[in-house]
Amino acid sequence: MKTKRFTKVLVANRGEIAVQIIRALHELNIQAVAVYTPADQDSPAVRLADEAVCIGPNPVTASYLNMQAIISAANLTGCQAIHPGYGFLSENATFAELCAACHLTFIGPSAALITKMGDKEAARETMHRLGVPVIPGSHQVITNLAEAETVAKQLGYPVMLKAAAGGGGKGIRTVTTAQAMSANFQSAQREARASYSDDRLYVEKILTNVKHVEVQVLADHFGHVVALPERDCSLQRHHQKIIEESPCALVTPKQRQWLLNLVATTTKRLGYTNTGTFEFLMDQQGRFYFLEMNTRLQVEHPVTEMVTGLELIKLQVRIAAGQPLPLRQADVQLTGVAMECRFNAEDPQHDFRPQPGTIKKLVLPTGSLGVRIDAGIVQGSLISPFYDSMIAKIVVHGPDRQRVCQKMQRCLAELQLSGLQTNRRFLHDLVGSPLVQTAKYTTEGIETQFMKGWLDAQTKISTTDDRGATSAAS
Amino acid sequence: MKTKRFTKVLVANRGEIAVQIIRALHELNIQAVAVYTPADQDSPAVRLADEAVCIGPNPVTASYLNMQAIISAANLTGCQAIHPGYGFLSENATFAELCAACHLTFIGPSAALITKMGDKEAARETMHRLGVPVIPGSHQVITNLAEAETVAKQLGYPVMLKAAAGGGGKGIRTVTTAQAMSANFQSAQREARASYSDDRLYVEKILTNVKHVEVQVLADHFGHVVALPERDCSLQRHHQKIIEESPCALVTPKQRQWLLNLVATTTKRLGYTNTGTFEFLMDQQGRFYFLEMNTRLQVEHPVTEMVTGLELIKLQVRIAAGQPLPLRQADVQLTGVAMECRFNAEDPQHDFRPQPGTIKKLVLPTGSLGVRIDAGIVQGSLISPFYDSMIAKIVVHGPDRQRVCQKMQRCLAELQLSGLQTNRRFLHDLVGSPLVQTAKYTTEGIETQFMKGWLDAQTKISTTDDRGATSAAS
Repeated sequence: MKTKRFTKVLVANRGEIAVQIIRALHELNIQAVAVYTPADQDSPAVRLADEAVCIGPNPVTASYLNMQAIISAANLTGCQAIHPGYGFLSENATFAELCAACHLTFIGPSAALITKMGDKEAARETMHRLGVPVIPGSHQVITNLAEAETVAKQLGYPVMLKAAAGGGGKGIRTVTTAQAMSANFQSAQREARASYSDDRLYVEKILTNVKHVEVQVLADHFGHVVALPERDCSLQRHHQKIIEESPCALVTPKQRQWLLNLVATTTKRLGYTNTGTFEFLMDQQGRFYFLEMNTRLQVEHPVTEMVTGLELIKLQVRIAAGQPLPLRQADVQLTGVAMECRFNAEDPQHDFRPQPGTIKKLVLPTGSLGVRIDAGIVQGSLISPFYDSMIAKIVVHGPDRQRVCQKMQRCLAELQLSGLQTNRRFLHDLVGSPLVQTAKYTTEGIETQFMKGWLDAQTKISTTDDRGATSAAS
Repeated sequence: MKTKRFTKVLVANRGEIAVQIIRALHELNIQAVAVYTPADQDSPAVRLADEAVCIGPNPVTASYLNMQAIISAANLTGCQAIHPGYGFLSENATFAELCAACHLTFIGPSAALITKMGDKEAARETMHRLGVPVIPGSHQVITNLAEAETVAKQLGYPVMLKAAAGGGGKGIRTVTTAQAMSANFQSAQREARASYSDDRLYVEKILTNVKHVEVQVLADHFGHVVALPERDCSLQRHHQKIIEESPCALVTPKQRQWLLNLVATTTKRLGYTNTGTFEFLMDQQGRFYFLEMNTRLQVEHPVTEMVTGLELIKLQVRIAAGQPLPLRQADVQLTGVAMECRFNAEDPQHDFRPQPGTIKKLVLPTGSLGVRIDAGIVQGSLISPFYDSMIAKIVVHGPDRQRVCQKMQRCLAELQLSGLQTNRRFLHDLVGSPLVQTAKYTTEGIETQFMKGWLDAQTKISTTDDRGATSAAS
């Protein structure tokens, strides 16, 4: 691949990730062009960028998802490349193709691989063929009840029935007992036939008490691949990650070596480039099952940066510019433990309902060893109802989990924000809970082991005031 | 030594170091009591502390240097110990003794060792006796001109004449040539006789083109000592450090081993405990000469924390509580490079005149890998004329100097503060200068190789506006 020289890159995103990308570009001596909407016109990203282009009104479909507007902005400002960040157009193969057609480098994998991994069922089949363990299931279509019952018995209940032609969420049933199979099979078949004119089904095991463990990979255009130490992203609410850490406390060095080697080998076989993340479920026996691949940078990448010392956005840019990876697998060192809390404008006492508003007072607990706070807002910023509710990522790195949890709790106790409701206290209490302290949490942990007790404890605490240290310490 | 259990500690300081001490105490599950003056009553330290006591009016002699008021505050609030921070009472043996008399643990070395190292001439003699190289000189008193001429010739000019009884700055002369010796000797003798009734003089070599290199040490009450990788603090203005880094780029691993071993051995022989710093001059041949010892935490300790991963304030508290050091010299790892810039409210174009005032808008470049900003202020804070002009310490850690300088420049370009004049642009340009980039700077470097050119370049730039990224990037 021919090396490209980037002098100006467009950042097709907003918020904290836009800020991080602009900083990385500046440190690489590359100019940064921000795109924005009226709601974001005074954002730190716009202030930090060398140029900024308004790409449309506030709704994302008209702006941050508006491919034509973004491509035009890149062309008008003389950019050579586009960094999509996460979310928005970052996993959109059409956008990656459009970039290529317009002679703009899309900083990410090829459109073909985005497509290949974008179809989650096809991706699992691909992984299965490449020898990656996937969630146990029939792997071939089931056409009658007897077959379904045999497979389900082998797998053990609960199982899931899925339409082979599916993807639209139709023809899916959870079957918890053998007794319930017959009725569910027939209704799934009927729905599949009605939706896809194809009533073939798969049977898949439903894994319970599992961790969500993921491995980020970097791959250049010269066949060099490095897999980075895993992240445990099991702490979720509404199936959305809320606290992530690296490494996973339950993964042994031997398991890690096996896992990273599996991911690196598979990445190479796929011909994958740039960065991406293999998501797995890990069961109580320490077995891994491929879930899906994210073909982009992830929100939680800072924990990986903290434990490896690698700057992932800069490496993405280097790879996209046709430069070889400056490190090999043996150079990847895992140092200490890092944890990230997603500090959101949301109300944990009311089903994590987003709480847009203006940040009146903000004092971030910045400035001590191992603390990093990635924010895309400042005092006075608006948390807009148009976009997601994340205010900042609070990341702590330290020599062990105990000290990381202590420091994280101290940071969350200190954090001062007024003007809107946040999940500060929720995060603070969660980090201090036995669930997190023991590291044995699974993806259902918050729901089943924390939430009720915590909600009960909140009844007497005012929900309108988020005063920081004083109230947190009391 | 009997182990003590601290549940509450008084922080006898203000500004960023008070914040850092409070944070360390909180992470150790110890309550923190802040002391303050009316000017500091709304400071972050006061907000973060569990309790806060007003100790007097704004002038430091009536408050932060008011031993009785501080001791009373500690007793009234039920503290077991006092952390003095740096400056103020941190090297005051009388205060350390007063603490002991009042059954309060002074978190620092013994009063006897503070006294011993506080007399700078006596400290050099002590070090000389312990085999530590000191600045070449007569080491014994000179009573007549002929002797002075002989010693000066051996040492090589320039030399310094110093009153043996001195300490008050009297009877000191710089002699640059043999011709100038006679007149200077007589005038120094006269002045010494008049000031101290003792006209004996020392002759000492004046070292030029030297670096200021220092080594911080930790020592517990069980004879365990660790010396930490050296800092290069040569970048000074008005003999005050402005940028510090660790390690010193010109010190080889072999030299480092020798230096750290020297410092550790000497610390042990002194019977020194807690933390302290050995300051040396390093000449162009890589020879070290002891200058003085600071018997306290230093402003620039974060660079050491960044390259070692050690949290020095917590270790100070542990040592003072009679706990053994949790590490040995072999556990001290040097990882990468760290640099600190002192971000001050001062006007570099007018002799670094302090610029007190209110911080109207403040956006710190927090939140990327390896960036740490220790601040004791927030937006709206007053930089008071009563105290020093430091706003924050900007600390960057990275794998090598080049990347650290790049990141530091990017941070300084981004930093946004309005309401008063700062040294932001000065620091930004200094970090980008060949002087810093090559790492070959000496203590006179800013004065002789940077200042004039920089001042000339500023003539056309507005000095009243410190707008951050936009103006810095243009």
